[in-house]
Amino acid sequence: MQAFVKTERGPGAEIRTVPEPKPADDEVLIRVLASSICGTDVHIWVWNEWAQAHVSHVPMIPGHEVCGEVVEVGKRVRSLRVGDRVSAETHIVDGTCYQCRTGKMHICENVQVLGVHRNGVFAEFAVLPELNAWKNDPHLDPALASIQEPLGNAVHSLLPEENLEDIAGGTVLVSGCGPIGLLAIAVARTLGARRVFATEVNPLRASLAKKMGADRVLDPTDPNTPAVKTIREETEGRGVDVAVEMAGHPAALKLAFDALTPGGRVSLLGLFDHDVSLNFNDAVIFKAAKVHGIYGRRMFETWFQVKGLLADAAFREKMNQIITHRVPIRDLPSAMGLIESMQAAKVSLEARW
Amino acid sequence: MQAFVKTERGPGAEIRTVPEPKPADDEVLIRVLASSICGTDVHIWVWNEWAQAHVSHVPMIPGHEVCGEVVEVGKRVRSLRVGDRVSAETHIVDGTCYQCRTGKMHICENVQVLGVHRNGVFAEFAVLPELNAWKNDPHLDPALASIQEPLGNAVHSLLPEENLEDIAGGTVLVSGCGPIGLLAIAVARTLGARRVFATEVNPLRASLAKKMGADRVLDPTDPNTPAVKTIREETEGRGVDVAVEMAGHPAALKLAFDALTPGGRVSLLGLFDHDVSLNFNDAVIFKAAKVHGIYGRRMFETWFQVKGLLADAAFREKMNQIITHRVPIRDLPSAMGLIESMQAAKVSLEARW
Amino acid sequence: MQAFVKTERGPGAEIRTVPEPKPADDEVLIRVLASSICGTDVHIWVWNEWAQAHVSHVPMIPGHEVCGEVVEVGKRVRSLRVGDRVSAETHIVDGTCYQCRTGKMHICENVQVLGVHRNGVFAEFAVLPELNAWKNDPHLDPALASIQEPLGNAVHSLLPEENLEDIAGGTVLVSGCGPIGLLAIAVARTLGARRVFATEVNPLRASLAKKMGADRVLDPTDPNTPAVKTIREETEGRGVDVAVEMAGHPAALKLAFDALTPGGRVSLLGLFDHDVSLNFNDAVIFKAAKVHGIYGRRMFETWFQVKGLLADAAFREKMNQIITHRVPIRDLPSAMGLIESMQAAKVSLEARW
Amino acid sequence: MQAFVKTERGPGAEIRTVPEPKPADDEVLIRVLASSICGTDVHIWVWNEWAQAHVSHVPMIPGHEVCGEVVEVGKRVRSLRVGDRVSAETHIVDGTCYQCRTGKMHICENVQVLGVHRNGVFAEFAVLPELNAWKNDPHLDPALASIQEPLGNAVHSLLPEENLEDIAGGTVLVSGCGPIGLLAIAVARTLGARRVFATEVNPLRASLAKKMGADRVLDPTDPNTPAVKTIREETEGRGVDVAVEMAGHPAALKLAFDALTPGGRVSLLGLFDHDVSLNFNDAVIFKAAKVHGIYGRRMFETWFQVKGLLADAAFREKMNQIITHRVPIRDLPSAMGLIESMQAAKVSLEARW
Repeated sequence: MQAFVKTERGPGAEIRTVPEPKPADDEVLIRVLASSICGTDVHIWVWNEWAQAHVSHVPMIPGHEVCGEVVEVGKRVRSLRVGDRVSAETHIVDGTCYQCRTGKMHICENVQVLGVHRNGVFAEFAVLPELNAWKNDPHLDPALASIQEPLGNAVHSLLPEENLEDIAGGTVLVSGCGPIGLLAIAVARTLGARRVFATEVNPLRASLAKKMGADRVLDPTDPNTPAVKTIREETEGRGVDVAVEMAGHPAALKLAFDALTPGGRVSLLGLFDHDVSLNFNDAVIFKAAKVHGIYGRRMFETWFQVKGLLADAAFREKMNQIITHRVPIRDLPSAMGLIESMQAAKVSLEARW
Repeated sequence: MQAFVKTERGPGAEIRTVPEPKPADDEVLIRVLASSICGTDVHIWVWNEWAQAHVSHVPMIPGHEVCGEVVEVGKRVRSLRVGDRVSAETHIVDGTCYQCRTGKMHICENVQVLGVHRNGVFAEFAVLPELNAWKNDPHLDPALASIQEPLGNAVHSLLPEENLEDIAGGTVLVSGCGPIGLLAIAVARTLGARRVFATEVNPLRASLAKKMGADRVLDPTDPNTPAVKTIREETEGRGVDVAVEMAGHPAALKLAFDALTPGGRVSLLGLFDHDVSLNFNDAVIFKAAKVHGIYGRRMFETWFQVKGLLADAAFREKMNQIITHRVPIRDLPSAMGLIESMQAAKVSLEARW
Repeated sequence: MQAFVKTERGPGAEIRTVPEPKPADDEVLIRVLASSICGTDVHIWVWNEWAQAHVSHVPMIPGHEVCGEVVEVGKRVRSLRVGDRVSAETHIVDGTCYQCRTGKMHICENVQVLGVHRNGVFAEFAVLPELNAWKNDPHLDPALASIQEPLGNAVHSLLPEENLEDIAGGTVLVSGCGPIGLLAIAVARTLGARRVFATEVNPLRASLAKKMGADRVLDPTDPNTPAVKTIREETEGRGVDVAVEMAGHPAALKLAFDALTPGGRVSLLGLFDHDVSLNFNDAVIFKAAKVHGIYGRRMFETWFQVKGLLADAAFREKMNQIITHRVPIRDLPSAMGLIESMQAAKVSLEARW
Repeated sequence: MQAFVKTERGPGAEIRTVPEPKPADDEVLIRVLASSICGTDVHIWVWNEWAQAHVSHVPMIPGHEVCGEVVEVGKRVRSLRVGDRVSAETHIVDGTCYQCRTGKMHICENVQVLGVHRNGVFAEFAVLPELNAWKNDPHLDPALASIQEPLGNAVHSLLPEENLEDIAGGTVLVSGCGPIGLLAIAVARTLGARRVFATEVNPLRASLAKKMGADRVLDPTDPNTPAVKTIREETEGRGVDVAVEMAGHPAALKLAFDALTPGGRVSLLGLFDHDVSLNFNDAVIFKAAKVHGIYGRRMFETWFQVKGLLADAAFREKMNQIITHRVPIRDLPSAMGLIESMQAAKVSLEARW
């Protein structure tokens, strides 16, 4: 089959002809219908520090956002059949560690990530464990199906625990409007948020944030509409109930806490380049704030929530607008460039080699 | 002022001229702009067994669903001003009992209900404790503002605990489509439910259920589309995640549990005429079901959720459709008849005497 | 190896010599050090209606409460080694159904129960899937280790959700003092309950309930100390915060709700012989009660809680008192008789053939 | 009456004869039986920056930890009578703000703190709002009753939300063993923690930590038993489920996150002198950690939990050991010195003038 293969511990990857993989007893083989590019894929492509530390071996096929059709099932597989359309939960878990045994599979101690620690989906075919193959509605556009995983990050940031209903009727701040931030805006809207604020400096993203349903998109560097002051004025002086931090910038972290109402909560998803200094007394303690670190998404409570969102035509229409580019996968190198240079939000890859 | 007054322990009430009430230090006086009729008001009007047992004294002014304008504030009141538009939380609580001290004011041991234990709102003016006067958006239609309380019942049925996010992406059954059931359908839709089922025998209500956004409205007495079977077929064999029982009928209770997925939850709001016999093993224990008794609404978490819903124009438009009649309050007697004979869903009362 | 085998669809089982089982790739083989008798085992022994409906095939080795030593591990097993001491979680799950994917493995759609649907532990050796083999402290008395599963039922009844801290400082009623009820008393005590009530008619069990730490053991048939009245008097008029129903008797169900404080919660574990009639208005709705159906125990949050309890010497000492008899497994038939005739609480079986 | 009065905006306070206060309609007057010294009282005594910023006016009577006897009740008070023994919840709230209306009274927007913003309890008599007067068991030693508030801080740190049962069977780290940290150790033990670690440099406090039931008391400055490494070794490599940070030191904050298991939670109570720099990626995000800011205690869920703890004689015995000094209140100045110089844990003040 054709596949992008990283053959050396360095930047880029090349199209190669490699053997089709075989599914184990508890795995399925899929034919890739569509895939898409995540920030992690860019890290691996440019071969930055993170990639050097985390990619365990080469040759390796990158990519993990996918929609495919099942073409073969292992003999112990019972929930899937040939012809089913599936997407991938990227975290391949051991199922028996402390975290897996206590409802926290997504932070499994022995997790392996598709396209990082084992061969991924930038290929004609790929194998997935049964547990990681999420069955899609057969009518769902494969391009949308492929970006369920970042949608899951967005949902998990808004609903990090089993039990939280503070979005309904509440006020929300999304700081940072990359693809996950944009999705978070659309999700907050759909879950009944009363008012959604977003911060973003990039004009393309700010414009998409408006389309996702943000009531207010603030440029945090604009001195004329200071973000925290504006948010307070438009929340009866209270600040937001929920802030999701997607920017990974120290100023955005501070802003999230400053804009928060006492007793509110903050989800942290954006990664920071360095340690960040914070006034914990004011930001967390006196405010009785609750903070959730967000990594991955709940397996699979979040996926069922995602399924519900995707059943709504208006929501799917919003997702469509986030896909700013649809290109053949053979053009992956130039697609990487579009994201690096911030000219694209989400890039969808068609199975054309 | 003019007011409907129940002068004797018997059916009906009459318009009388009575003195305007005076607010205590922690109360406000409101001029009634709109009110509406709840099932409880009908019980008190027809003077059924429940009313005989619960109405504590006469003469008494009935009514509790209201929107009014503050015209006077007691001297210890700090959160409200003359001119504010408010609605009423009906449950007047002591603030110091076990339930009040543990986040459950709505089931206060010493609760007094407006229009049942003390003078209500079917009058030109009424007094409310500051805590019970809920400040509305000044632009909100008083007729909609008045039905926030049953909307609160609907929201509380769907989100009975601080922490529940299983509506988002989940499947919901609403059994019984009176005004609260109808509102529950609209709310479930707005909170991101994937699929909403409703059961109802009355054609007017069934038709409104469709307008509220139910995907499927089933007549539980129709042998051609057996409700439980249909629900299972349309939920991949699983049954619904959440059932809210609003009918108060033994068959509806059984249906709610039969249609429930293992591990799902049921909210019970509809009152039953008699004891109900249930197979607890299958309905509750083997199914690991969770059951919530619903009484009133959370004070005031639910009200903030309601505020969020009312901020959405599409939601308000749905609420409008539930108000099948708008009549002057002086026609209260005939309005009661409309509800008793099931010709109306919600009746809104205009302040015309 | 030696094993008790039910050879026909009828009462009893016989000691037979059968081949040692072989573990699959994801299973372990254990040598049984101790086992114990559960109520389910009695049902299967006497071959009542439940057993006839649920036992899927013969010949079958019954038994599921166990402590064993790992003597062989399948090649995909990573969390266990030869020599480890383990107990069994009885519910063998598919891992991929809706319930398994949403943190509710214990109600897996395709569950198989050890000793009911596949060979159990009343034998010299048994196989367990890796996931179901719970690693014990090597110093724990095998007789105690074997009764971790009913202890798990007790803990799960008290803490049925991820998130409940109402035992700490609260008041608890345990209705029915079989082994699980007795364990529930001890657990409630250990988790910081302020006051624990129990109801029981059998004098042996009532006496053990006292030893477990119940402040008050009430005979619900005694007219001189009416249970509900006594409970109210000793809870400042409020009733209990939590009731766990272990008796499976209609009067006990009613008592549990009558004794409950408004806003309290009830766990139902005891199975009922027939449908039960209940005043849902007073028991559930007006009281804003929360009801949990209890089946099995959370996999494996409950097991970690159990591990914590077993780390406490005082708690282990209480558990010891529940084991009223320790007999060689070859005497299983007479041990069954002890339980049927209510002369025993828990019977522990030593691995002597 | 006699009272310590801060007459000027500066260090110390003097015994003065002042008029007995009069309770308002919703207040009670208490005769002080015992009081005790909190860290906040020391701040106010030495008149540090915090005190200068927060004490709103002089003359002012400091002190807020108390046990008193009700000697007069306002005419609207219904839950208390003359002769009742009460302690004080220090946070006097408005009851109508956003936080108060949503179950978060303890972070009321308009909170007034006893002994900081209005006259406190270092006097012969004091007034308390009915809501803030917590009714004690009449047999409880006034010295213990007086330290219920810091006990509430400890409980709230361990159980910050309505719904958390991860202490039971879990592992806990308490960093910093001042009075609240010491109480937290005892509480974790009582709530069924499997293993409790503590860190402390002061030998007196370390020795008390042992008496409270810590399994391991580590000196974080001791290179021979590195705290994080030791904790991991004694938790099967996992780290603790719950860390409560009571030291207010940057190194302690870092230690709390380093010692935490993925998916665990951290409560922050100790105040920091400056901003603290943290690697949020590793500490919070990749670990999917949950962080709670702790301020005050839940009104009044925490108080009911405290009541439960105080019902246990063994727990009261532990509390007794924390009271290292019992002195007449007239010796307040020297008692302040004992705490400043770290020679005391808790100092109880007898009502001897």
